[in-house]
Amino acid sequence: MLPRGRPRALGAAALLLLLLLIGFFLFGGDVECERGERGGERRGPGSFPCPLTPRVSADGRPRGAAAVDGDPSADRGGRNRSDCVPPRPPLPKCELLHVAIVCAGHNSSRDLVTLVKSVLFYRKNPLHFHLVTDAMARNILEMLFHTWMVPAVRVSFYDAEELKPQVSWIPNKHYSGLYGLMKLVLPAALPPELARVIVLDTDITFASDIAELWALFAHFSDEQVIGLVENQSDWYLGNLWRNHRPWPALGRGFNTGVILLRLDRLRQAGWGQMWKLTATRELLTLPATSLADQDIFNAVIKEHPGLVQPLPCVWNVQLSDHTLAERCYSEASDLKVIHWNSPKKLRVKNKHVEYFRNLYLTFLEYDGNLLRRELFGCPSPPPAGAEQVQRALAQLDEEDACFEFRQQRLTVHRVHVTFLPHEPPPPRPHDVTLVAQLSMDRLQMLEALCRHWPGPMSLALYLTDAEAQQFLRFVEASAVLSARQNVAYHVVYREGPLYPVNQLRNVALAQALTPYVFLSDIDFLPAYSLYDDLRASIEQLKLGSERRAALVVPAFETLHYRFSFPSSKAEVLALLDSGSLYTFRYHEWPRGHAPTDYARWREAQTPYRVQWAADYEPYVVVPRDCPRYDPRFVGFGWNKVAHIVELDAQEYELLVLPEAFTVHLPHGPSLDISHFRSSPTYRDCLQAIKDEFHQDLSRRYGAAALKYLTALRQPRSPA
Amino acid sequence: MLPRGRPRALGAAALLLLLLLIGFFLFGGDVECERGERGGERRGPGSFPCPLTPRVSADGRPRGAAAVDGDPSADRGGRNRSDCVPPRPPLPKCELLHVAIVCAGHNSSRDLVTLVKSVLFYRKNPLHFHLVTDAMARNILEMLFHTWMVPAVRVSFYDAEELKPQVSWIPNKHYSGLYGLMKLVLPAALPPELARVIVLDTDITFASDIAELWALFAHFSDEQVIGLVENQSDWYLGNLWRNHRPWPALGRGFNTGVILLRLDRLRQAGWGQMWKLTATRELLTLPATSLADQDIFNAVIKEHPGLVQPLPCVWNVQLSDHTLAERCYSEASDLKVIHWNSPKKLRVKNKHVEYFRNLYLTFLEYDGNLLRRELFGCPSPPPAGAEQVQRALAQLDEEDACFEFRQQRLTVHRVHVTFLPHEPPPPRPHDVTLVAQLSMDRLQMLEALCRHWPGPMSLALYLTDAEAQQFLRFVEASAVLSARQNVAYHVVYREGPLYPVNQLRNVALAQALTPYVFLSDIDFLPAYSLYDDLRASIEQLKLGSERRAALVVPAFETLHYRFSFPSSKAEVLALLDSGSLYTFRYHEWPRGHAPTDYARWREAQTPYRVQWAADYEPYVVVPRDCPRYDPRFVGFGWNKVAHIVELDAQEYELLVLPEAFTVHLPHGPSLDISHFRSSPTYRDCLQAIKDEFHQDLSRRYGAAALKYLTALRQPRSPA
Repeated sequence: MLPRGRPRALGAAALLLLLLLIGFFLFGGDVECERGERGGERRGPGSFPCPLTPRVSADGRPRGAAAVDGDPSADRGGRNRSDCVPPRPPLPKCELLHVAIVCAGHNSSRDLVTLVKSVLFYRKNPLHFHLVTDAMARNILEMLFHTWMVPAVRVSFYDAEELKPQVSWIPNKHYSGLYGLMKLVLPAALPPELARVIVLDTDITFASDIAELWALFAHFSDEQVIGLVENQSDWYLGNLWRNHRPWPALGRGFNTGVILLRLDRLRQAGWGQMWKLTATRELLTLPATSLADQDIFNAVIKEHPGLVQPLPCVWNVQLSDHTLAERCYSEASDLKVIHWNSPKKLRVKNKHVEYFRNLYLTFLEYDGNLLRRELFGCPSPPPAGAEQVQRALAQLDEEDACFEFRQQRLTVHRVHVTFLPHEPPPPRPHDVTLVAQLSMDRLQMLEALCRHWPGPMSLALYLTDAEAQQFLRFVEASAVLSARQNVAYHVVYREGPLYPVNQLRNVALAQALTPYVFLSDIDFLPAYSLYDDLRASIEQLKLGSERRAALVVPAFETLHYRFSFPSSKAEVLALLDSGSLYTFRYHEWPRGHAPTDYARWREAQTPYRVQWAADYEPYVVVPRDCPRYDPRFVGFGWNKVAHIVELDAQEYELLVLPEAFTVHLPHGPSLDISHFRSSPTYRDCLQAIKDEFHQDLSRRYGAAALKYLTALRQPRSPA
Repeated sequence: MLPRGRPRALGAAALLLLLLLIGFFLFGGDVECERGERGGERRGPGSFPCPLTPRVSADGRPRGAAAVDGDPSADRGGRNRSDCVPPRPPLPKCELLHVAIVCAGHNSSRDLVTLVKSVLFYRKNPLHFHLVTDAMARNILEMLFHTWMVPAVRVSFYDAEELKPQVSWIPNKHYSGLYGLMKLVLPAALPPELARVIVLDTDITFASDIAELWALFAHFSDEQVIGLVENQSDWYLGNLWRNHRPWPALGRGFNTGVILLRLDRLRQAGWGQMWKLTATRELLTLPATSLADQDIFNAVIKEHPGLVQPLPCVWNVQLSDHTLAERCYSEASDLKVIHWNSPKKLRVKNKHVEYFRNLYLTFLEYDGNLLRRELFGCPSPPPAGAEQVQRALAQLDEEDACFEFRQQRLTVHRVHVTFLPHEPPPPRPHDVTLVAQLSMDRLQMLEALCRHWPGPMSLALYLTDAEAQQFLRFVEASAVLSARQNVAYHVVYREGPLYPVNQLRNVALAQALTPYVFLSDIDFLPAYSLYDDLRASIEQLKLGSERRAALVVPAFETLHYRFSFPSSKAEVLALLDSGSLYTFRYHEWPRGHAPTDYARWREAQTPYRVQWAADYEPYVVVPRDCPRYDPRFVGFGWNKVAHIVELDAQEYELLVLPEAFTVHLPHGPSLDISHFRSSPTYRDCLQAIKDEFHQDLSRRYGAAALKYLTALRQPRSPA
């Protein structure tokens, strides 16, 4: 019975209020007015609910941040659409985010770099990358991340070879082969203590902070274990052509280019058994997977729909030939992740593709060095090796006139080895790799070099990220270069004002795979027969463990822009006599090669020994385990001389080959050389560096080093 | 009297609830749980208030998103800190944002481009830039935006000259001169219907969406008219040195690098009078402003503190020598806007500066073409001219073998004229500008060219954004180039696979400022006396209105890499005779220059007339208003020939100068040439383009064109 009068009125009001509040609590769900406290995921009824459409729709399918029917995402940062969207619970500050990627081969490795650059550009959290790789990708990426030294980034490698047995029984028509099936075994392969991970394909580009994607884990119900975006094509509807039989899927199915995995729950739920059972059963009626692991994921989800949390379409905007992505981006203004699941040359001319292409190009050509920055407000432990470098750099005196030289010497350049597909040469006795370094302005020489030298080459290229893409296109457009599998190109990313010539040579040298190396320069074309002749000489002379020697290939130069390359020693001699050919740098600096004793070479029919002399810098063939070039020599000047001094100090015989020759072609000075020579301090700094080099020599070789110090002190005729 | 018993309890509960609700309404202010509706600014009590610290502190100073005491911003997107921050009311979708910038001179114009790139990178709204410029900046920026053709960007120019009288009475010690005072007159200068504008300095870089800054207008109380970030140095505290007398300010004062202006309210409040009054008064005791308009803004604010809405420090992180910005970014993880109010070479070695430098460099080198993208979900009207280009491009047949050629011809390249400081030459009769075009691989020629030609030059450079920066550094590092004020460099930004050689020449030609031009190529060095000789010849021959002629400068070439440049015609003849010099392309394509009649030139002592012949492509001096180069010729081949045909068709006499000469130096083939020649279709496409050119000739010159068609059809000896 309701009380009457004033109390009755108050009571009625109170009851009404009470009912209203109860209603909000019931239906408000896990929504609250944005609070400012740091916290983890906030779940359950909140204090300040707002009315919300129910989170489960009539047919039992979960509905929320992304309805699978093409209802575009409502989640757009500060701008929400018609449905009230629960404000995202903030991530704990500096939470470590885990990302897993399967990557095999040279081309995928390059794609992965672009993906990582886009992730790093926007991220504010520490990251841990888990990379499942084959040997080639591991080789590349391990070196790359090691030299990249990005703070607050950790990388772990998992051997794809070891995982192959778990998936090799599945026939797969997709070009990705076994690697395309490996996402299925991630719960088993990744560390057991890892509970959550984002899995990405390599043809993904981020246009947003990956932490926003990670935050979507908070939307998982207790049963959900995997977050996916709808597949934006009709593939799984099975009507693309007659007899088209796709694997089973829920409606259009899901695209596995971007996956949120609750690894802990997957393991608990017996994921390993689950997918194998499903795959086995389907393979009774289907011959193979067509879309690799995506097919199997979809088949499992079809059986267990409750496992999946659909993600907003903006987290995997798929561009391919049959794309229905239009629906997604025609509504949304915030595209978060672009998935180029189609060949690069998209000739489609719609305005959206321009946007996507531009985004992709942005990161393709973005200077990766700029991503070497610490996180604000989060501990950013420097990666291995970085601390040492930083300490050494901090000790440099900025007022030192040679500061730039010293700084360049300490710089650790980001290195991407085997930038292009490369086949290691089959083991062959006495095999020789031509080793050289270059930058953009000498790309022209590559084709000619390939025509002169059929053997393996290891070339270091000093490029910016943008130049690396130009270089890629240059090689792809060249029939001569594309045809060669035994030329390895290693990109060393530009950094600093001075040309790190010896660091570049050392990279190329370290990557050589044959027992011997021919240490050359990019402007030289070797005799057509040199590759074969060298191997013969190496064998005859028993170069290597039995005989410590450096075989000298005499160097010549032509001053003529148009030049008919000599095909034999006899022709060389004829051209010398006619004045069309000179010994190298005959006019400006004969000391560099005079000790080769060209007069003797004319008549020689067998290899002959020569003595080291000051400033001698011949081109030599040595065993691969020779001393490295001294990286203190940056810019230009004395960088080869120092190496020959080192060889001589280590008692390498200098043997001149009677039939070998290599010819320098004329070229304009490079920008790097001009910059260097315009520096007023370079001569003084070069002298200072030479002095330090000789002090080192004394320390290491004692009395034997005296010869070099004496030579250094002798006055020279002006160059 | 409270009722007793059950009704009493209910009543008490109701009363309590009522009191709570009333409390929330009173103090919740303009806060509400995030709703999804599109709407404008939401103000006033909301439906779902949450407790909030009061927005005005005890001393009457407004407190809110940024407390001036160094309390770092709480506004950080999805991650809030201890104070509950009102969720930002969403902006109306596609709201047009207005940005005003004062920009004078060549260097500020470059800075503005970097700023604009950073704004465009993150923006999702249509933008209208209001630029207050001097003549130089206007010239550059008008051309730049016109060729950039960014959708949903509008630009209006305001003449700084006209505004100068309003501020010229104020003595200003700051290097910015009168331009540094112009922000004060924006309320008067900008259109009266414009209510709100963001004002930026040119040394600003954005790291976030400018819409987030615009949204801060919503936090203005009814009295506030100007939003500013605290000045992050001790300047206004007046204790930097003895006798340091800064202008008055509130505490540390405010920095005017980033300003939110309520223009409507400023005008209503009589801003013009207000600041003039304050300035006049202060100038009674202070000799001048030290920090230009910033001093006056601060003085006004000191008098009227209620005018200012302090903005979070992350919106103007100031890096200068005396910066206290550390406090801001040591707390925040979301830096929104960086203000490099200090010279570029910041040798400070802290990790934060690395971050800032990297951000700045990102946009400095970012390919501006990638920003030519439409907005998603907002109408993006194409800028003037763009529609026409798009239509023409859409009509091209992609299957056409010459598609790339046609596409390149239609491409509108982004152009930045006078990239470096340039002094227009004083008017001089018969003055000649050397006109040429180049890309990175020919930078070497510039110094030599400067030594050979003391007169004005107009050079078009085909570069990427990153290369443009390299070029800048190259010129700055070169004493020879930095010394020249009469060499104008115009950057044409790379786009497309083929070299738009004639478009480049046309840009350089259009920018020439003298009555005559010498149409040259970058690989040629003119005779040392050519500049003087040409002017004399032009005068003698009455070139121009009285005589329609093209003066031919005979072309030669050396094949020697080292070469001693001839200082007179006699030396040229001697070198010809000794075989060190040849007429240009003597070996491969003599037809190109043979009609110059070198045999006659040897003996000639006065200018002599020659006749046009097929494939003739001499280097000529003509009046500036000569025909343009035909841009259909892209890549290489026939691009100069077509021009000479045009000149001949317009009845220009071809007069060879007896003492003039220019010499081609050898060089390796450029990447562009190699790419071009590797294209299998180039010969066929070149032929197709030549045919179309000749059809055009027929249309325009009728029977007179017959001569050229006949010449075209004659069989040629193989090149």
